[in-house]
Amino acid sequence: MATHKLLLLPGDGIGPEVMREVEKIVGWFRKRGVGFETETDLVGGSAYDAHGAAISEDAMKLAQAADAVLFGAVGGAKWDSVPYAVRPEAGLLRLRKDLGLFANLRPAICYPALADASSLKREVVEGLDIMIVRELTGGVYFGEPKEIVTLEDGSQRAVDTQIYHTHEVERIARVAFDLAGKRRNKVSSAEKFNVMKTGVFWRQVVTRIHKAEFSDVELEHVLADNCAMQLVRYPKQFDVIVTDNLFGDILSDIAAMLTGSLGMLPSASLGAEDPATGQRKALYEPVHGSAPDIAGKGLANPIAMIGSFGMALRYSFGLLDEADRLDKAIANVLASGTRTKDIAAPGMNAVGTQDVGDAIVKEL
Amino acid sequence: MATHKLLLLPGDGIGPEVMREVEKIVGWFRKRGVGFETETDLVGGSAYDAHGAAISEDAMKLAQAADAVLFGAVGGAKWDSVPYAVRPEAGLLRLRKDLGLFANLRPAICYPALADASSLKREVVEGLDIMIVRELTGGVYFGEPKEIVTLEDGSQRAVDTQIYHTHEVERIARVAFDLAGKRRNKVSSAEKFNVMKTGVFWRQVVTRIHKAEFSDVELEHVLADNCAMQLVRYPKQFDVIVTDNLFGDILSDIAAMLTGSLGMLPSASLGAEDPATGQRKALYEPVHGSAPDIAGKGLANPIAMIGSFGMALRYSFGLLDEADRLDKAIANVLASGTRTKDIAAPGMNAVGTQDVGDAIVKEL
Ligand SMILES: CC(C)[C@H](C(=O)O)[C@@H](O)C(=O)O
Ligand SMILES: CC(C)[C@H](C(=O)O)[C@@H](O)C(=O)O
Repeated sequence: MATHKLLLLPGDGIGPEVMREVEKIVGWFRKRGVGFETETDLVGGSAYDAHGAAISEDAMKLAQAADAVLFGAVGGAKWDSVPYAVRPEAGLLRLRKDLGLFANLRPAICYPALADASSLKREVVEGLDIMIVRELTGGVYFGEPKEIVTLEDGSQRAVDTQIYHTHEVERIARVAFDLAGKRRNKVSSAEKFNVMKTGVFWRQVVTRIHKAEFSDVELEHVLADNCAMQLVRYPKQFDVIVTDNLFGDILSDIAAMLTGSLGMLPSASLGAEDPATGQRKALYEPVHGSAPDIAGKGLANPIAMIGSFGMALRYSFGLLDEADRLDKAIANVLASGTRTKDIAAPGMNAVGTQDVGDAIVKEL
Repeated sequence: MATHKLLLLPGDGIGPEVMREVEKIVGWFRKRGVGFETETDLVGGSAYDAHGAAISEDAMKLAQAADAVLFGAVGGAKWDSVPYAVRPEAGLLRLRKDLGLFANLRPAICYPALADASSLKREVVEGLDIMIVRELTGGVYFGEPKEIVTLEDGSQRAVDTQIYHTHEVERIARVAFDLAGKRRNKVSSAEKFNVMKTGVFWRQVVTRIHKAEFSDVELEHVLADNCAMQLVRYPKQFDVIVTDNLFGDILSDIAAMLTGSLGMLPSASLGAEDPATGQRKALYEPVHGSAPDIAGKGLANPIAMIGSFGMALRYSFGLLDEADRLDKAIANVLASGTRTKDIAAPGMNAVGTQDVGDAIVKEL
């Protein structure tokens, strides 16, 4: 029987507590004979505190060797003034870059039972199911120069550089069209072609790939600012949104917030398929952050993290039955009213992080 | 009596029809003895069609000589494939840059009468009154290199560059703190200091100006992605948001969309005060775009454009009584139910662009 190597990187804030619930689920599957081998290491502020780096070389080696990485969350005010190169986020950015995880899939789903938790009107978000496909290893996140320079007169100049190459846009466009083909067959490509050359370029490459390889999928181009507006106004007009690293950061957060289910949303970051093995590197993480304000209090909703493990079952290990079983268990627990505070309906008794994990294991 | 020189640049799409209503208002004030001198010229796609440039040198001269520019909107699918350097938006960007209009003030106000037009729940947006202060002449909009290069192997690379200098961040921070002092005394500064060096720099400079000159104003730093989320979740937590050119583009569009009043929101773009004359260059424009889909149909809401003229009365000409009078006329017309389709309540008869302009003149 195949063994699946999982690296768990709980990180900071609520990361460790939500990861603990995933470990229960992993344990359950292991007892039923699914071969999981897990290792755990530090990332983010906790890695900085231990090693002076946002991720150690050893942890990077484990990540390279793993079949999938499960990532909690990083960051917090505690590390706001550590040197830039070792800030908590640097650990996550290095994982994305070194593992070549160029495709970030962020589903934004509004569970009908939770529609009232949204700040938007129920009819605007109920049943919402969109997928943001964010380019994750290029753009302004990694382009050089990226520096702060002191000039002769003592004043300073700061620079960031957004760079995109043909193959980077091509491969993320293919991921988006491919996904759309399995969904509602529509891709909205967001950029600022009216202001940015990378936007002009993005539009050109996406258009070319569409014509050449996916002309049966509907493609629309939308300005990133207008896309943000339309997400607020009438989000159900979208199916798959494909966009660059920086716009993707913002647009996916908006989309997540619309659903009223931020604590529920998983994400997958995937690398290219190895032509020899058919395997791809992958990291799975909740869309929410480290939420330092509620960390350690047992209040965090573990479902986004557990759902991220569910995405790993599906995308990395091909364990579709197991993934379905887990999704169903989550749905049943939700329906039964076992919910953390962030998604409890008015009048409902909110339970703690561990209770939700335990309930899901019991449902399984 | 002083003469105020206004340059009207209606632009494309619904620009001309909403500008026509402003001319009625200008005419009314002129008849009552306020010295307005107006000139009109082309900008955007219509300038391209006439001159092959998004704004002519003559129009730029008029803009330089004017006390205030009133700008409609530019762009439309018709010009989607004109060369980059002469695309409609280039006219607006040149005006901003050449007139040194570094401070873009975008109020987002939710009129109680229109709260139901928002896609957000009434209680989330009712009474909302925030001000986005967007840096407008720096950042990725203007930084070089900004190019698409073909490499030896035939593939391409596109580049945009975000640059900020000390004085650019200082002056926009001052505008924000200054405004906050006249409002609810809170500034939220948005950047991505966890990923961008310009973000690190932005946070440093804003913090320094705050300590040195405005320590009585509350300052918070917020990540741009989180700011977008918080705008959707609980926008009333904000008073003044100060941010860079690109984040400002997106965040101000989100803020505007929350209000349900996109057709209502004016904006001002201001230059530095001339120490000799106390004057500053200024351009006033609606937050909404050129809306090609409804152009020429008499459906556009002219209130954002008329309100932009109101901001000119206030900020450029110091005509505070006149500005108050205009604001009141607008409010009365709204209250009377004379509304275009975008803001008509269910069951209300929507009127046309001209009807709203006429009604406001009548109210005056
Ligand atoms: C933590 C941070 C570096 C990260 C990003 O900006 O990509 C986060 O906001 C995200 O969206 O995953
Ligand atoms: C028209 C376009 C160049 C402009 C911008 O991106 O600044 C617009 O979106 C705005 O916000 O004023």
